[in-house]
Amino acid sequence: MQPEPEKRPELKDLQEILAGGATPLDTFLSDVRAADLAEWLYELEELEVARVFAALDLEGRVELLLFSEDPVRQTLLAGLNEEELRQVIEEMPADEVVDLLALTDEKTAERVLRRVDFERAQGLRELASYEADTAGGLMTSEFVTVQSDVHVGDAIKEIRSEEGPAGEEEIGVFVVDENGRPVGFVSDRELLTTGIHTPVAEVMDDDVITVGVDEDQEEVGNLVSKYSLSAVPVVDDQGVLIGVVSAEDALEALEDEVEEDIRRLVGTSPDEQTHLSISARVRTRIPLQALTVVGGLVTAFILDKALPGGGEAGRIDILRYLPIIIGLAGNVGIQSSTILVRAYATGELSQERESSVLGSEVIVGLMIGLLCGAATMCVATFMEGDPTNFSFGLALGCAIVVAVTWASFLGCVVPMSCQRFGIDPAIVAGPFLITLSDISGAAIFVGVAHLTLGLA
Amino acid sequence: MQPEPEKRPELKDLQEILAGGATPLDTFLSDVRAADLAEWLYELEELEVARVFAALDLEGRVELLLFSEDPVRQTLLAGLNEEELRQVIEEMPADEVVDLLALTDEKTAERVLRRVDFERAQGLRELASYEADTAGGLMTSEFVTVQSDVHVGDAIKEIRSEEGPAGEEEIGVFVVDENGRPVGFVSDRELLTTGIHTPVAEVMDDDVITVGVDEDQEEVGNLVSKYSLSAVPVVDDQGVLIGVVSAEDALEALEDEVEEDIRRLVGTSPDEQTHLSISARVRTRIPLQALTVVGGLVTAFILDKALPGGGEAGRIDILRYLPIIIGLAGNVGIQSSTILVRAYATGELSQERESSVLGSEVIVGLMIGLLCGAATMCVATFMEGDPTNFSFGLALGCAIVVAVTWASFLGCVVPMSCQRFGIDPAIVAGPFLITLSDISGAAIFVGVAHLTLGLA
Repeated sequence: MQPEPEKRPELKDLQEILAGGATPLDTFLSDVRAADLAEWLYELEELEVARVFAALDLEGRVELLLFSEDPVRQTLLAGLNEEELRQVIEEMPADEVVDLLALTDEKTAERVLRRVDFERAQGLRELASYEADTAGGLMTSEFVTVQSDVHVGDAIKEIRSEEGPAGEEEIGVFVVDENGRPVGFVSDRELLTTGIHTPVAEVMDDDVITVGVDEDQEEVGNLVSKYSLSAVPVVDDQGVLIGVVSAEDALEALEDEVEEDIRRLVGTSPDEQTHLSISARVRTRIPLQALTVVGGLVTAFILDKALPGGGEAGRIDILRYLPIIIGLAGNVGIQSSTILVRAYATGELSQERESSVLGSEVIVGLMIGLLCGAATMCVATFMEGDPTNFSFGLALGCAIVVAVTWASFLGCVVPMSCQRFGIDPAIVAGPFLITLSDISGAAIFVGVAHLTLGLA
Repeated sequence: MQPEPEKRPELKDLQEILAGGATPLDTFLSDVRAADLAEWLYELEELEVARVFAALDLEGRVELLLFSEDPVRQTLLAGLNEEELRQVIEEMPADEVVDLLALTDEKTAERVLRRVDFERAQGLRELASYEADTAGGLMTSEFVTVQSDVHVGDAIKEIRSEEGPAGEEEIGVFVVDENGRPVGFVSDRELLTTGIHTPVAEVMDDDVITVGVDEDQEEVGNLVSKYSLSAVPVVDDQGVLIGVVSAEDALEALEDEVEEDIRRLVGTSPDEQTHLSISARVRTRIPLQALTVVGGLVTAFILDKALPGGGEAGRIDILRYLPIIIGLAGNVGIQSSTILVRAYATGELSQERESSVLGSEVIVGLMIGLLCGAATMCVATFMEGDPTNFSFGLALGCAIVVAVTWASFLGCVVPMSCQRFGIDPAIVAGPFLITLSDISGAAIFVGVAHLTLGLA
């Protein structure tokens, strides 16, 4: 007797309601998970986003803010007046509040903080003073501590009395000595399974691994990952416990650093790229291509000096510029394919978005090709220093445009076909695609050269 | 009054003791964290590893096994007789046991399982039947469930009675209906802060997100990451709860998939590479290079047909092979630099290991260069089809060896210098290094050509 699977609400249901459907918006939204809603907002107009946000109750707003990422988050924040912002802040964990206030202008943040409970506002101001990518920037200042001479029952009472905002991390209890230095940790499970009259010191894990407040976030993530910690206590330079980083936040920071590494390898952040506008995508991806053009021109220059073309203009001259074409096409192909592979892996790219993503990626490739082709054409014409070579520069520019556009097309179509046929697209994204784009880049190059320069 | 920082034991202390120090080994080891010990074992001889493992008590052995990775894990396992293995297994969470038994031969595994409590052995056999990269392969079958009509106090009692091995995940309580289908989840914190007479159904989170037992591990990780879950219930095709994947395990699986993506982009797994032998490193990195050689030869062939060299052998011929050199040097440089960047980031590479890692990476580069250079020399000589061109093939091979070795040197020295001067080495690992290696690859190429072929 297989149970009828419950039908989850979908983006298109929301779009129908926004376009004037029968169900009231707030009724519909009460069934939607905040994480899903946060994702759908990417697909909506700003006005629609505002309508959705206005239809949520306070809890729904808090959750949506917790799950949404920066561009959308900012739109949401802009729709709140100061009183609403204060309400939202009271329901959020301290570390999230700090991230949120960092998105507003300083004056608004200060006005809102003045309305918050004085003690909490003090704590928030202090949290906000730490660098975002350090332990201080990751930690929350709201957690439960007990002295080492209390009993398990006292620790449970302490948890009950300090229970804070709903979204707060559930990270057990830290045990401190009389100077506030951490000496142990008791998990919630331990508290549940031990008699209330047992001294905390007897059940606590006394091998405490702490980090300094200025420690790099990557180091905090490495500690969590290496020692399988559920939370890391953060201490000041006196060794006093001033905050706690949850495993979740530490690992997320580590993940960000790995993403950063991929971003640097590929020359663009692969995640969420398909949600960006074409001009934004060209802008983030052009610096790597510019570097490749410069490197390729230097290579061509070296080759020119070492192996002068002599009277045989055209043939050797063309081959000198091959590294630029191959490099550019390889970069663009690897960027497109990596973006697609990650988008499939994270579920960012659904089947119905495939054709629009393919179209926009090819346009991005074309734009990059035009920019780099034009730049190379100008410099190459100048470098060859021969007016009869103007057609040569033009041929070079055209070859770049065609090869780069083709590479972005390949970088999309190959992973898409793999996905269609049930092969993991990641298999082809790297070296295989580069090889394919190298060979076709060279072929396009000589093809265009034949057409425009009439070489035989 | 800054407290004296406690001196943590270090690898060299262990090495001293193994070489015959005054402190007994077991006394020393009782102060060492299992995660640290697991890392140190990489640096020890197999016999020393066995001595260390033998000196640990049962708890220490279990922890060390939980923290160690596969090559070392296997060495450790080999040192256990069946009775010791049974003891270790009784103290481990079910999902870890399955991973461990997968490393032994089937006969041993079966003999050990026969000594384990019958019911547990059944559960372990079932767990072992799922594919490693699915929800079934990640989940544990040992977790706490209660019926939806019980009270909070009953749930706490259930936890106390079912408390299993020490390493078990602490993941709250799942609430199921009369058919065993999950209908809710209660965290330990919720149980601690609610009165024991409250019905569980009142405090449970009833928005349960489940996965099927065959679901891909990447999908499980995405769910945990997207919805910030602390654990995912796994159901069979009747919707019955049969296992639980902890957030930690799900995120680790996701991390493995991201690593896999990097591995495919770079053509080698960057993590733990510096701990491998030189031949293992060459073996894992040669497939990408072979693909590059083949692609480059195809490109050279196309160029040869499209732009025949005519009587001017040497000049054009050389330029046709430029893509191979640039491609190989770029690959090796990006591999070396990515390995170093990740090794710095994860703390795998300490300052005292730098020079030995540099040396071994350059040797790896040299080996790859020799293999690829020899292959290219043979094919190119054959392709040019001219006995006078034997010296040409030799020049080409030499250029490849020099350029690839140089690229691996660059790929190490540039990130190392960055690290030394306090610049994040990741900044230079990607496009910057490729550009540098492209230019120097071309320069080396023409340099070698000049020397060996006497071109002017």
